[in-house]
Amino acid sequence: MNDDSWLRSGIGRSTPDSITIRGRDLATELMGKVTFSELAFFLTAGRMPSAGETRLFDAALVALADHGLTPSVLAARLTWTGATESLQGSVAAGLLGAGNVFLGVVEDTARFLAAILAEAALGGDEAGVGAAAGRAVAAEIAAGRRIPGLGHPVHKLEDPRTPRLYEIAAEAGIPTPHMDLLRTVAEAHAAATGKTLPINGAGVVGAAYADLGFPPEIVRGFALLARTAGLVGHLAEEMTDPIGLRLWLDVEHRATYTAET
Amino acid sequence: MNDDSWLRSGIGRSTPDSITIRGRDLATELMGKVTFSELAFFLTAGRMPSAGETRLFDAALVALADHGLTPSVLAARLTWTGATESLQGSVAAGLLGAGNVFLGVVEDTARFLAAILAEAALGGDEAGVGAAAGRAVAAEIAAGRRIPGLGHPVHKLEDPRTPRLYEIAAEAGIPTPHMDLLRTVAEAHAAATGKTLPINGAGVVGAAYADLGFPPEIVRGFALLARTAGLVGHLAEEMTDPIGLRLWLDVEHRATYTAET
Amino acid sequence: MNDDSWLRSGIGRSTPDSITIRGRDLATELMGKVTFSELAFFLTAGRMPSAGETRLFDAALVALADHGLTPSVLAARLTWTGATESLQGSVAAGLLGAGNVFLGVVEDTARFLAAILAEAALGGDEAGVGAAAGRAVAAEIAAGRRIPGLGHPVHKLEDPRTPRLYEIAAEAGIPTPHMDLLRTVAEAHAAATGKTLPINGAGVVGAAYADLGFPPEIVRGFALLARTAGLVGHLAEEMTDPIGLRLWLDVEHRATYTAET
Amino acid sequence: MNDDSWLRSGIGRSTPDSITIRGRDLATELMGKVTFSELAFFLTAGRMPSAGETRLFDAALVALADHGLTPSVLAARLTWTGATESLQGSVAAGLLGAGNVFLGVVEDTARFLAAILAEAALGGDEAGVGAAAGRAVAAEIAAGRRIPGLGHPVHKLEDPRTPRLYEIAAEAGIPTPHMDLLRTVAEAHAAATGKTLPINGAGVVGAAYADLGFPPEIVRGFALLARTAGLVGHLAEEMTDPIGLRLWLDVEHRATYTAET
Repeated sequence: MNDDSWLRSGIGRSTPDSITIRGRDLATELMGKVTFSELAFFLTAGRMPSAGETRLFDAALVALADHGLTPSVLAARLTWTGATESLQGSVAAGLLGAGNVFLGVVEDTARFLAAILAEAALGGDEAGVGAAAGRAVAAEIAAGRRIPGLGHPVHKLEDPRTPRLYEIAAEAGIPTPHMDLLRTVAEAHAAATGKTLPINGAGVVGAAYADLGFPPEIVRGFALLARTAGLVGHLAEEMTDPIGLRLWLDVEHRATYTAET
Repeated sequence: MNDDSWLRSGIGRSTPDSITIRGRDLATELMGKVTFSELAFFLTAGRMPSAGETRLFDAALVALADHGLTPSVLAARLTWTGATESLQGSVAAGLLGAGNVFLGVVEDTARFLAAILAEAALGGDEAGVGAAAGRAVAAEIAAGRRIPGLGHPVHKLEDPRTPRLYEIAAEAGIPTPHMDLLRTVAEAHAAATGKTLPINGAGVVGAAYADLGFPPEIVRGFALLARTAGLVGHLAEEMTDPIGLRLWLDVEHRATYTAET
Repeated sequence: MNDDSWLRSGIGRSTPDSITIRGRDLATELMGKVTFSELAFFLTAGRMPSAGETRLFDAALVALADHGLTPSVLAARLTWTGATESLQGSVAAGLLGAGNVFLGVVEDTARFLAAILAEAALGGDEAGVGAAAGRAVAAEIAAGRRIPGLGHPVHKLEDPRTPRLYEIAAEAGIPTPHMDLLRTVAEAHAAATGKTLPINGAGVVGAAYADLGFPPEIVRGFALLARTAGLVGHLAEEMTDPIGLRLWLDVEHRATYTAET
Repeated sequence: MNDDSWLRSGIGRSTPDSITIRGRDLATELMGKVTFSELAFFLTAGRMPSAGETRLFDAALVALADHGLTPSVLAARLTWTGATESLQGSVAAGLLGAGNVFLGVVEDTARFLAAILAEAALGGDEAGVGAAAGRAVAAEIAAGRRIPGLGHPVHKLEDPRTPRLYEIAAEAGIPTPHMDLLRTVAEAHAAATGKTLPINGAGVVGAAYADLGFPPEIVRGFALLARTAGLVGHLAEEMTDPIGLRLWLDVEHRATYTAET
């Protein structure tokens, strides 16, 4: 400890002959011994994941890495059209669109489920989870809000990522109270509205991150990590097959100008 | 093929009941079957890595994920101080500082080594690589430029990541012409200047990415992926232990205002 | 109108021999005839401001352009430390910290005041504004929330921008119902709590933008425009007098590493 | 001066009862007395512009504020599609595309012209400027590079902003050695190649900023300031008439997926 104890961090440190991450020596204890996803888990959780946790964490990252030519992918590729000196600028532009509308669902779902579990825990009653879920769903419906994690504009009947992640979680053999609750929530919603909405991929991933012990406010960060892998792939393609440029020229050609002149 | 063949991509596609990444079904062929780093490799390379390639790719990502309270980490944490509605904004701010000065070395080294190998290949002579390296080093020195991948402001004698990555590459049993050449370059530099500079971590990682088959212009993307994991860890810490806020208050307190009034 | 009527915009258009902004010819009707702030008003409002409106709009932009070494300025300058190939990256990093905590006040205040005026208008009673303000303030206090636009961590007694902007608005001779209401709100808060908080600069600027006819959801955009001017100034200074670099080195030197090793 | 003299800035300072910008009191000396563009000039130059300089500076900002549905505007509007919690994220995404390909011309032209003037000044001969311009143009042509500031993909015969900015500069009555030189450069290029290229808007604006005394490395910052005004206008339109959303849906509908499955 020195005088400036206000400035402290436990993430990383470098000295002339070593680099330390969360207290472990990078070269001798981490490189070659953990995968990148294990390190990503460790960097945020401060502990190494079990084998089962790693399996679920990897699958959740894989699930969200890419979803085709989404708005944020198009933004990244258009950014490259104007700024080829700075790959980080195009990646950053792509991440900036990964906000409340799409990837925010990961966080919203984790938060919604955690609140239900917390309320049920106050009652000290395992069976109370179902009742708390019913109350929470009813409250959202009454307020005219959508239930986080349910429904998808493209995958209207079933999001293909969802049953697969449940399967992997079961194989991983770890407790998944948030993922279980999300199914209860979907059933409660169907019962209350008479309309069945599929659990979407972002929602089930948010539940999985919560089951892995992460607080809701950070889980969007893993969705950003996943999307960064997708963005790098898209930008590599953009370098040889420029969608951004062609899209712009097409827009220039087809756009209608509406201001009176 | 439809009429709009100008707008084509081979990265990802989603239909109502499937998501496809680089031609493979996400749910049945990728989730639970590949790690996140294998997917990241696949997304950009368009092919799955071998076991040895995965080992080197993972180690290279682990090597660059964090280096303590760097300028870009501080920028991300300061951004959170002002904008807590948008985690993607803080991550993006952190990536924006991962440019030419620090992580650009990954790209510069890959490019420098690829050019030497290309020139030597033109000569059709294996032994010509050493001569080409000598010429390239001499040209940089004559131009007053630094050799990409050599020297580090903190790790003045040896960057601890470097020997470890060489060790892992040897264990992985894959050809590493760029990594080998980087050692030749370091020796040529020492011979020409009488001053030994260590191969830095960013440099050896750039050489490793080149050996994995990636073109120089995209390798900075993997450095950004690695740093995203570090930034998420730092931002998780920032949420409970706010360095950004304290740093700002300290700067406010200590800064000298130099404009005449 | 062409077939693609879904893709329409009234902001700008370019043809081989002209550029049009909001229906006016850029070269002959705008350049040399309007100031940059008049153009900024016009681009968003779709109409030119009156002389009085321009005076208030300019003063509001001037008020928010800079506030010293704020977190977002430090983020921009630290970003430059790592990425000198891309000035836009450093400016973008600076803007990303101009979020809900600081400049969000501009938007929050405009929204809060607009809601009170809308409620009072429903009653059809001019005198009802004061009563509606009292109810809104009481509701915020009851909910444990801060009143948007009141209080400042540095300017505890009076924010010097506030009385000056009221003075300029009075000279400009334009109706200022939102600015007037903000004073009523401050009085209602003082009456309800016995504690007088100053109207802060961001709050009064938000009220001014609302009085100029802009909807709450866009006014943060003008705060960003103002801050961009400040960021360019700071980055020009950073190029010759690098705070970012020195700050980083100081942090490296003083930080305490808290992870157990 | 305090002990921490390493941390100094002359841009802005705030105390409990004042805010100072470049040594002038914000409330009493700047608000209501200078326009926003005068303040932007002052923040970077450290001196107030003359009336003629203000006229040219304003016209240059107006010239670059918008150019229709450019790639960076589309990127900003697509970002809003995914992240409506954070206007600063969409503005930042738009600025990130204002890089080397488009707005970098502002900087490149300023740098190219400044180098010619510096070389001619070494000769101490006014007439030497033309000869130095000829040599510089010949060197670029020989190297297969484009001359900064000449040619435009849309405005093939004449960029409408260019003659207008020359006109305004003449009216402003200030010395414009860089703008004059740019015409000499265009003539030298036509003489050397037999092909006349128009001076583009970004180029003449870069020359104007150089004539106003700004060093080449910062002039891109004013282009960013100008574009921020355009981006705010586009995002205001996006809030009510969402091009980003419609463009994405259209791309989803029309894109061809090229990966073999």
